[in-house]
Amino acid sequence: MVQEKYDLVVLGGGISGYSAAIRAAQLNKRVAIVEKSLLGGTCLHKGCIPTKSFLKSADTYQLIQHAEDYGITTSTPTFNFPKVQARKQRIVESMYSGLQMLIRQKKIDVFNGTGRLLGASIFSPQSGTVSVTYEDGTSELLTNDYVLIATGSSPMTLPFLEIDHERIVTSDDLLAMSSLPSSIAIIGAGVIGLEFASFFSQVGVEVHVIEAADKIYLNDSDVVSQQLQNALSKRGVKFHTGVKLSEDNVTVLENQVAFNLGTTIQTDIALVAIGRRANISDIGLSNTDVVITEQQTIETNEYMQTKAPHIYASGDVIGHLQLAHVGAKEGIIAVEHMFQQNPIAIDYNVMPRCIYTTPEVAAIGLSAEAAKSQGYHVKTVKAAFQTNGKAMIMSPGTPDGFAELVIDKESGSVLGANLVGSNVTEHINELSVLQFLNGSALELGMATHAHPSMSELLMELGLLYEKQAIHL
Amino acid sequence: MVQEKYDLVVLGGGISGYSAAIRAAQLNKRVAIVEKSLLGGTCLHKGCIPTKSFLKSADTYQLIQHAEDYGITTSTPTFNFPKVQARKQRIVESMYSGLQMLIRQKKIDVFNGTGRLLGASIFSPQSGTVSVTYEDGTSELLTNDYVLIATGSSPMTLPFLEIDHERIVTSDDLLAMSSLPSSIAIIGAGVIGLEFASFFSQVGVEVHVIEAADKIYLNDSDVVSQQLQNALSKRGVKFHTGVKLSEDNVTVLENQVAFNLGTTIQTDIALVAIGRRANISDIGLSNTDVVITEQQTIETNEYMQTKAPHIYASGDVIGHLQLAHVGAKEGIIAVEHMFQQNPIAIDYNVMPRCIYTTPEVAAIGLSAEAAKSQGYHVKTVKAAFQTNGKAMIMSPGTPDGFAELVIDKESGSVLGANLVGSNVTEHINELSVLQFLNGSALELGMATHAHPSMSELLMELGLLYEKQAIHL
Repeated sequence: MVQEKYDLVVLGGGISGYSAAIRAAQLNKRVAIVEKSLLGGTCLHKGCIPTKSFLKSADTYQLIQHAEDYGITTSTPTFNFPKVQARKQRIVESMYSGLQMLIRQKKIDVFNGTGRLLGASIFSPQSGTVSVTYEDGTSELLTNDYVLIATGSSPMTLPFLEIDHERIVTSDDLLAMSSLPSSIAIIGAGVIGLEFASFFSQVGVEVHVIEAADKIYLNDSDVVSQQLQNALSKRGVKFHTGVKLSEDNVTVLENQVAFNLGTTIQTDIALVAIGRRANISDIGLSNTDVVITEQQTIETNEYMQTKAPHIYASGDVIGHLQLAHVGAKEGIIAVEHMFQQNPIAIDYNVMPRCIYTTPEVAAIGLSAEAAKSQGYHVKTVKAAFQTNGKAMIMSPGTPDGFAELVIDKESGSVLGANLVGSNVTEHINELSVLQFLNGSALELGMATHAHPSMSELLMELGLLYEKQAIHL
Repeated sequence: MVQEKYDLVVLGGGISGYSAAIRAAQLNKRVAIVEKSLLGGTCLHKGCIPTKSFLKSADTYQLIQHAEDYGITTSTPTFNFPKVQARKQRIVESMYSGLQMLIRQKKIDVFNGTGRLLGASIFSPQSGTVSVTYEDGTSELLTNDYVLIATGSSPMTLPFLEIDHERIVTSDDLLAMSSLPSSIAIIGAGVIGLEFASFFSQVGVEVHVIEAADKIYLNDSDVVSQQLQNALSKRGVKFHTGVKLSEDNVTVLENQVAFNLGTTIQTDIALVAIGRRANISDIGLSNTDVVITEQQTIETNEYMQTKAPHIYASGDVIGHLQLAHVGAKEGIIAVEHMFQQNPIAIDYNVMPRCIYTTPEVAAIGLSAEAAKSQGYHVKTVKAAFQTNGKAMIMSPGTPDGFAELVIDKESGSVLGANLVGSNVTEHINELSVLQFLNGSALELGMATHAHPSMSELLMELGLLYEKQAIHL
């Protein structure tokens, strides 16, 4: 069966794909999404949302253990994991039904099957017709003017350590588990690994983080990485850095996984969190002029256009910053470019980069090192949240973390920022607005901030650069 | 004794006064602060900081009662008020010692006595020499080039209801109480009254709010007022609006206060929170050309200069917005104006206005009504936090509140905002940066916000105005 021609067919209904589809529908285009699993994709079902729900429950559990610090007496709390799972599922399902409604309202057609790009044919002189294959083996063709590939990414695996979903698991498995392990080895100290390390260490699970590099290294900042590593270590997380795993030093036992890292570690399960690979297989790319990079991602220009001008790609599959809001932005820019809306080219320097550990980590723009290597003369200003009244009020003990601004000495512009502490994944958005408007440290400092608030610290840092800070 | 002449003498060591003093010290000026009580003033000792500490404890208490919603089982918590008091005191003292250190580092002289302005004399051809009188009756004179009056404000009282600090109390008394009452009548539904209503209703105290006006009215917004009133009512707060109190309908009994409001209400104590009056008495204003307004505040221009050009005034004593960060800003502008730093004149439209109730309330700039009356053609866009994933994750049930932007249809500029919900006293600072930079709704919408975050809702509203929102 051949459907009426679409203006745009989106391969993949994750946040990048559905954002693009909605934007195209706003431009009165006829749009289809082909999704082989669930609308909302990794972010909604296996990423951002479910992990943050787990982390919020763990944070609440920790807070209750510190209730006495706030003057509240209660019994030792119990972390009731099945209920935590159920809460997560409730939130995901509520957002999922909201999203489905949104897509229906925008009159976007959703094809629940596997999409594959076809080459030029009698039907269509240009490549890119999408063949959708359903579970029952039937299929149909979606002809179109434009295609957006937003097929996302999947957890990478280690060749010598098969994912058996029981002992050796991915983050997908952890989000579906029915009970907590008593111990876990987390292979890979990236964002996903560290968020799970934070979660498990808050709820009493023994956590080992095994990292091939000599140190954990986040957001291009050593000082941030060090601060987070210290905070997690204080909660009992054991870091094993500079460890190359191979079939020689990992053994999957009947009920345990054993690591020989000089000393022997045995844990109930091991999470493989060494990164995510772009989903570029079996989608028919070889039928098109789309070019694959050395990193096995799809190559695009700054408007997300591939080498085949009518085929765009966005989100994890192009692999720039594998973050939900970046994927959404890329998808929107792609659509605005294909339909002549003159979008601003993507600027990865104004994209917040967040890690939802406790303490949270958030960064934007350039680190001091990166700015220097780009030829900027920079000055950094930095202050701890323990100098901030609101942070003192919110925190059970002395508040964790700091804020740091990287400032261009010539223009006074804020080039980047690193934040560590409670709620900094919100505060970073203020700096995103500032950087998008090309604001200076002085402008940040002169914008009056409510007292008391944690983000006053950002204002004070702006003023500090100008030697006008009041409380620093 | 006559001290060496100061460049600036500041009357009052609250946040407005000490911020001004620090700014002057940065400009290498010789500065003195005259403070009759404690450096830090109302904000640190009797206002912002201690109330927010109480509110955080109450919020934590509430959260623990909802622990099961997050999957955590614990016993019914006890709100241990003496410990809540001790925590508050610890935080205040820690910040107080930080502030004292800061003032010492800046080499600002602090005179711990009562300051009074003198008229022109043999010592000084211009008025404004400050006489400091100490508790032991001794005094000294501080000659100066400039004076900043930052004497703050005190709770207003009712002529027929004497503050006895036991049954009839001010907010100062509540912050020092050693045990919770079982019931309280709060006279006045302003910021202070409502913050205490929020606190007491969270910790199981019966709360009646008595307001002379027909409705509570906050931040110039009916919809905000209504939402907050609904949220507090749901927690059991009884509102009695349109009630004119007089000696005829209030009786102070031995252990209770009785109000005859048609029905009779009896409460353990009554808080008088009908506003704060500027501290302009007994500071020698009549010896100077300083002019007092009809509202019994000090008149200044937009640089905080009084009719006596060498005398400035800032903070609650000028009575524009009685908010700590506004007072600090006014003090800094005053100093920058007296010492020729060309400050930008104060713009009360870019000052956040926050109420730390649960849910929190925050506003900035113009309400739709105010903007229309100023001749703007406005459009408002509004969305509930229940459409936001992060808000869903953070909240025990359906998240409270909404965000609303008031936008100038001609320029697309954001003229104002009203927020109600968890943590909005932080999110408002992002809008403060935007408004200070004169940013538009589209710019707010195009600044990428981290996913998931509550402040994504602000981005979506910016986009909604341009019919480009993805999730609304």
